[in-house]
Amino acid sequence: MRMSEGVEWAAHCVLLLCALPDDATLSAVRLAEYHGIPAPYLAKSLQALAGAGIASSIPGRHGGYRLSRPPSKITLLDVVLAVEGNDAFFRCTEIRKRGPSRVAARAYPAMCGIAAAMDRAETAWRAQLEQTTIAELATGVLHGAPPAALNKTAEWLHQTLSGKPRSGDGKRNHS
Amino acid sequence: MRMSEGVEWAAHCVLLLCALPDDATLSAVRLAEYHGIPAPYLAKSLQALAGAGIASSIPGRHGGYRLSRPPSKITLLDVVLAVEGNDAFFRCTEIRKRGPSRVAARAYPAMCGIAAAMDRAETAWRAQLEQTTIAELATGVLHGAPPAALNKTAEWLHQTLSGKPRSGDGKRNHS
Repeated sequence: MRMSEGVEWAAHCVLLLCALPDDATLSAVRLAEYHGIPAPYLAKSLQALAGAGIASSIPGRHGGYRLSRPPSKITLLDVVLAVEGNDAFFRCTEIRKRGPSRVAARAYPAMCGIAAAMDRAETAWRAQLEQTTIAELATGVLHGAPPAALNKTAEWLHQTLSGKPRSGDGKRNHS
Repeated sequence: MRMSEGVEWAAHCVLLLCALPDDATLSAVRLAEYHGIPAPYLAKSLQALAGAGIASSIPGRHGGYRLSRPPSKITLLDVVLAVEGNDAFFRCTEIRKRGPSRVAARAYPAMCGIAAAMDRAETAWRAQLEQTTIAELATGVLHGAPPAALNKTAEWLHQTLSGKPRSGDGKRNHS
C-alpha cells in the first residue's frame, strides 16, 4: 500500500508546468534537472501524465511538456491515478461464497460488508484528493515557499525558456 | 496501491473467530478449510493478526486461534494495518529541496503542500476504517447473510469444535 515515487515526481512536475507562459514547454531533461531526478527515472511519470491527458508532449526541437488544461481543472487525484492506475485498493474475491457453508451465489447480498467498508474508506480518500486542485497547491507554493527559492526558479525558467547556455549544457541531451 | 489478498482473508477469519464460544479456538487448517483457501497461504495473515495483538495463537493439541479482545474493540483499520503494515501511502522525499532552485533546508515550511494533501486523504481513509468495528461487520453478516449459509456455518462450527470426524479428515493435518 505504498505509492510509487513517481507520484511525487509527477505532482511536482505539474506544479512547475503551472509556472510556464502560454505555449512554452519544458523538456523531460529540463524537468528532471529542476527536480534533481535522473531523466530516465522521470520519463515514465511524464508519459503517465500525458497518457492521462494532464500534460501534452509537444514534439520538435523546441518541444517538451506543457499542461493540457488549466491547473484549476487538474486535481491531485488526477495525478495520483495517472501514475498509479485506477484500480481499487481492495479487490473482493468473494470468499464468503466459498467453503463448506456456501450456498447459491444469488442468495447473498450484492456486496460483502467488508468490501463495502473498504469502498467507503477509499471513497473518502479519493474525495480528499479530488478536493485538492493543482491551482491550490501552486498558490500554496507561491505563498509558502522561501522567496529566494522562488526567485531562483524564476531565473532558471527564464534562462531555460530563452535557451541561454549554462555550464555543463554541452554534455546534456536537450531532446 | 493494491491491498494484498491477505487482508480479505484476515478480515474474514476475524469475523469467523467472533462466532466462537469463550475459550474455543480454530486451527489454521480449519480456518483455511472454512474459507476455501490453501492453509499455507493463510498462515501469514494469521501470524499478522497474532503479531498485531488481534488474535492469539494457543499452542497444544486443542490449540488454535481465538480473538485477543472483544470484536467491538477491533476495527477494520486494525486488521488492514496488521497485514499491510503501518507505513503511509505517500512518502515525501522532499524533492522541493533539490535541484537548481534549492535554498537552505531550514527556509522551507515544515511540510510540502503535496505531502500535506496526501496526508489529509490518508487520514480520511484511516478514519473510515477505524469507524468500522468487527462487531458491526459481524452484526451485518448475521442480518444479511443467507440463513442457509448461517445454518451451515453453525453446523460446521459445532462439528469442528466437538471434534467429530468428517469425510476427508484422515488426509488432513489438524495441527
